[in-house]
Amino acid sequence: MNKRFAVILSGCGFQDGSEIHEATMSLLAIERTGNSYQCFAPDCDQHHVTNHLTGEPEEGNRNVLVESARIARGKVKALREYRQEDFDYLMLPGGYGAALNLCTFAVDGTECGIHPEVERAVTTTHAAGKPIGALCIAPVLLAKLLDEVKVTVGNDEDVNQALKAMGATPQNTKAEEIVVDEKKKLVTGPCYMLDSNIIEIANGAQNVVNALLRM
Amino acid sequence: MNKRFAVILSGCGFQDGSEIHEATMSLLAIERTGNSYQCFAPDCDQHHVTNHLTGEPEEGNRNVLVESARIARGKVKALREYRQEDFDYLMLPGGYGAALNLCTFAVDGTECGIHPEVERAVTTTHAAGKPIGALCIAPVLLAKLLDEVKVTVGNDEDVNQALKAMGATPQNTKAEEIVVDEKKKLVTGPCYMLDSNIIEIANGAQNVVNALLRM
Repeated sequence: MNKRFAVILSGCGFQDGSEIHEATMSLLAIERTGNSYQCFAPDCDQHHVTNHLTGEPEEGNRNVLVESARIARGKVKALREYRQEDFDYLMLPGGYGAALNLCTFAVDGTECGIHPEVERAVTTTHAAGKPIGALCIAPVLLAKLLDEVKVTVGNDEDVNQALKAMGATPQNTKAEEIVVDEKKKLVTGPCYMLDSNIIEIANGAQNVVNALLRM
Repeated sequence: MNKRFAVILSGCGFQDGSEIHEATMSLLAIERTGNSYQCFAPDCDQHHVTNHLTGEPEEGNRNVLVESARIARGKVKALREYRQEDFDYLMLPGGYGAALNLCTFAVDGTECGIHPEVERAVTTTHAAGKPIGALCIAPVLLAKLLDEVKVTVGNDEDVNQALKAMGATPQNTKAEEIVVDEKKKLVTGPCYMLDSNIIEIANGAQNVVNALLRM
């Protein structure tokens, strides 16, 4: 089909960056459907670094763009270079990085700030009428930035309440299920917001990409 | 089938650790065939840290086990805990971490040292007659540790020469192809040793897992 996807990463590792399986399976799903991708990430420090073995915070700083390059095998651009004109679809994998580095939802909830380059990417793409996909916790960004969206984050009651407070309509989903907001051209899937296995992540990411391509 | 795979990781990122797509696709292939995995990694410092955006060395130390936990979502054990009795298959994804942290092939070539826990894992598993799979550059470990093996690293002439010097028989392969050493119970695939795309990595890892399961 040769449609062009921009994929926004938020680091490398689900506790402080992009969820690796969700990001990798998104890239696979895009190529499996005969399309291409370009990864982007903001060139800024991570909110913090988490030791993924212990789950505890760790000393030191890491840069979101530099760490995202681990998933993208070096082929990642600074998000400030993103132009919606160059792409057909925008895709946001999950991981806490989406709620720590792309916005501050994990810390500030409904009052979260959004990284200005993320805001620009989402709002210009949406204004151009192009579909946007988001996995896991990343749909909170869409709820914060766009009006009255219909999205899923699985079945987390606290996040559902926050989504409602931001004007969104959350829908509960099971593994691999997706929610399509035809009017707003959004497709969301819960992935690791549920206790999923890696097959469900691969199928969930594929379902989101397939639904985007049908729009 | 419910066979148990042990997967040895070497960090998180192809330039100084495990290649993320190869590792993720290995885990997916294992689950897709109805089997289960446990990740392991040596609890030691990485050889060095590489900035994956620039390809240049970076300040600081990172621990192989802690960084591997990013790919394994925290579910990784120290390699010293590995017992071949608990598993049916051993699998080694690639990335330069396999040639920097699991052994020193990237620095010392045919005279490389092998991390003692990696040596113990490979040799005890092999002695027990259990099949071992390896992707990308990881087959050099098998060539160094086992006698007269038949393996592939794609078509890299320098590495092929080194493999011969270590007593192995290298076979050239294309993307997604594998080499099966029936006698030694080894299955190897080139993955990112060739200029592959992520579909070829997914299919290549699946082909290695399928061949292991047929042994």
